[in-house]
Amino acid sequence: MKVVKFGGSSLANARQLEKVKNIMASDPTRRIAVVSAPGKRFDSDTKVTDLLIELASQCLNGSADTLQTFKEIIERYASIAEELSIEEPIIEEITRSLSELLDMDKSVPGYFIDAVKASGEDNNAKLIAAYFRKAGLKARYINPKEAGLILSDEPGQAKVLAESYLNLYALRNYEEILVFPGFFGYTRKGRLVTFSRGGSDITGAIVANGVEAAMYENFTDVDSIFVANPKIVQNPVGISHLTYREMRELSYAGFSVLHDEALYPAFAEGIPVVVKNTNNPSAPGTVICEERPEGSDPFAITGIASQKGFASIYISKYMMNREVGFVRRVLSVFESFNLSIEHVVSGIDDIDVIFKEDQLSGNEIEHLLSEIKHQTAADQVVKCDNLCLLMVVGESMKSRVGITAKIASALSKASINLEMINQGSSENSLMFGIKEDQEEYAVRAVYNAFFQEDPR
Amino acid sequence: MKVVKFGGSSLANARQLEKVKNIMASDPTRRIAVVSAPGKRFDSDTKVTDLLIELASQCLNGSADTLQTFKEIIERYASIAEELSIEEPIIEEITRSLSELLDMDKSVPGYFIDAVKASGEDNNAKLIAAYFRKAGLKARYINPKEAGLILSDEPGQAKVLAESYLNLYALRNYEEILVFPGFFGYTRKGRLVTFSRGGSDITGAIVANGVEAAMYENFTDVDSIFVANPKIVQNPVGISHLTYREMRELSYAGFSVLHDEALYPAFAEGIPVVVKNTNNPSAPGTVICEERPEGSDPFAITGIASQKGFASIYISKYMMNREVGFVRRVLSVFESFNLSIEHVVSGIDDIDVIFKEDQLSGNEIEHLLSEIKHQTAADQVVKCDNLCLLMVVGESMKSRVGITAKIASALSKASINLEMINQGSSENSLMFGIKEDQEEYAVRAVYNAFFQEDPR
Repeated sequence: MKVVKFGGSSLANARQLEKVKNIMASDPTRRIAVVSAPGKRFDSDTKVTDLLIELASQCLNGSADTLQTFKEIIERYASIAEELSIEEPIIEEITRSLSELLDMDKSVPGYFIDAVKASGEDNNAKLIAAYFRKAGLKARYINPKEAGLILSDEPGQAKVLAESYLNLYALRNYEEILVFPGFFGYTRKGRLVTFSRGGSDITGAIVANGVEAAMYENFTDVDSIFVANPKIVQNPVGISHLTYREMRELSYAGFSVLHDEALYPAFAEGIPVVVKNTNNPSAPGTVICEERPEGSDPFAITGIASQKGFASIYISKYMMNREVGFVRRVLSVFESFNLSIEHVVSGIDDIDVIFKEDQLSGNEIEHLLSEIKHQTAADQVVKCDNLCLLMVVGESMKSRVGITAKIASALSKASINLEMINQGSSENSLMFGIKEDQEEYAVRAVYNAFFQEDPR
Repeated sequence: MKVVKFGGSSLANARQLEKVKNIMASDPTRRIAVVSAPGKRFDSDTKVTDLLIELASQCLNGSADTLQTFKEIIERYASIAEELSIEEPIIEEITRSLSELLDMDKSVPGYFIDAVKASGEDNNAKLIAAYFRKAGLKARYINPKEAGLILSDEPGQAKVLAESYLNLYALRNYEEILVFPGFFGYTRKGRLVTFSRGGSDITGAIVANGVEAAMYENFTDVDSIFVANPKIVQNPVGISHLTYREMRELSYAGFSVLHDEALYPAFAEGIPVVVKNTNNPSAPGTVICEERPEGSDPFAITGIASQKGFASIYISKYMMNREVGFVRRVLSVFESFNLSIEHVVSGIDDIDVIFKEDQLSGNEIEHLLSEIKHQTAADQVVKCDNLCLLMVVGESMKSRVGITAKIASALSKASINLEMINQGSSENSLMFGIKEDQEEYAVRAVYNAFFQEDPR
């Protein structure tokens, strides 16, 4: 059986929902649809989830605009229901349940906010189940509490608890297509809590794991995952197969189609994840799997990602390499500032520590620098801003000599100076530190070298 | 004024000593000669220092061969004195002082060994001073105690104490050429202690610093420092100018002409160090200085060094980059084994820690791996042996785009797989991890690319 997840843009209006219905109807092994809240119908539109967050905040602050936002949300469901001519009294039910929700105890704002946010997915699942039935499918809404999706007691950032997988296995027994709302579950004490933002992907992956699905299909609005960011490269090549490890490396460096952590529950069970397009379901999409089938992608690298917003701190001290524990002491200072470190590049007498810049304010930076200087008696401690990490990813890189040369040549021809290079022995990826203002040139240079000039 | 240091091969016999005398006589600003013990006269010869170490060990063990070794040592001085027709009763003095030395207190073997070892330099300095006088130079031997060279109380690995520099300044007042024995000094309590092996270079650098010399000349048996190891590359290009930082990077990765740490006291005062050839003193040699004069070396890189004997431990853990303190914890384990770490190459979910392999026995390795696994709950902890670090060094690399591409291309053409790459933001060097058995091919490939094919 397949678990199928539909994102917000696939569920934004009646026309999109009809495509979703056809996708479910066309393959009898598609047994469970995990759904998001209605997304944007057009560029300037507001996602229902964003309206709900506003509503929750207005309620907590006692704002006068609460009713207006409430109506706007109901209107989104109502317009879909009307377009689809759903006869069940679904809008009445949604109105009543959202209204009840707003009266709930607000003493712990986190629970209140989570409950209001999650209603977007929950009500949409009810609406979609009703639509499926009207369209002649055997379908039913299932609530995550009923399904046994048990999460840790961390509002807004809950994690799945292992017992959920056993509970979810029972979903195999339903005869109907199940419409399962994404994004939330319940604590052991029965309180509704949500995953972090974008959490419908993770619900799908957890359900796929629990029911031991043969495949987890993730429907979005693109034909495939591309080898490079389409905002930087025009009409980039699509990826036919991607391994979990490549996905993770690419996702890390700014690939935004799917978040690898959300897919982990599927990866952990070896379930292939297929990224497909609701608007073009016959396109093969991108398969994310444990091992790439022989010959499935003809290129030497799998993808190119880049991400801005990094900074590095450069520390030099004569004879650093003779001091047992030097690097450890540097990292302890970072830890005492609760800073996540992205990379460490070490020389003989110097070391660069790379981290996401937004973790620190200007004042803290000064404090960090002086603390490092104090703790290590370094000769020099300098911060370097506006760093972009360029990540070239591909598991087949390790078996090919000359990939580094080819990338470095392409960047050199494009006059891009390499601030840093980092390649470890896993060789699934090569990281280059470049200046932020050279990001687009760098991505295009590498893209052209591997996907245009010499596609071997 | 110049301080001039002569190594053992420049002092092995009368013919070499004559060259040394001519070098001192030819430049009246050469005021202080720092000398080693007599080195090898031919390939299978034994250095006097090695004979002395044997003698000290025989004395401590009560061996019957003591007298034989004693005679062999005296014979080395005597043959030099005879060839040079020195009339002063210098051999009698050396015989008496070495004989007295062997009767000294042996309760702390370190002091005894140091005193016996250091007699090689000390007696040679006396002999050379006598020879200089015979040859018509105004010269005198000076004892490090008299000169005020005060060291820390660490037999065999003493460090200079700051007060020495003030004391040594007074050496400027002597009218004669001073012949200063290298390798040893005295503790504050007056005990003789030595630097670590090769310590005549450091005596020269300390003396140069103390007297505020305009130049520190270091005479060896090569015309210059070469851009690559002459054992790997035939007739490599010589380096005309080298910066202190480049020297350090090269020295680290196996350049053996001089040890950068020994030269540090000269570097610290900004005193240029000139490496010259006793056998060809008119050759310009290699100048090691703070800043390279414009246009002094026409190549894009300054040197290529390589060193075998490294190992790396590869540690992977899913979501490593989210764990604040992960790398620090890994390094703490290395520290608890008292391991010096050479490099850290970090990825998203993995990290390579590179260290000198000889620091650990087979048993300890197993223990280290399991301790890392235990402390970090890593998914994978693997040791990789037989790693060679290839270091390409040059301060002008940072201002040139394309150096990395050129190196990587050269290595790729030579079918060398890059296990690791590490380039930090100092950009004075690029480090490549390769398999040990590819060392020579790699050095030659990079040499040919930069010094043969395209010398820009």
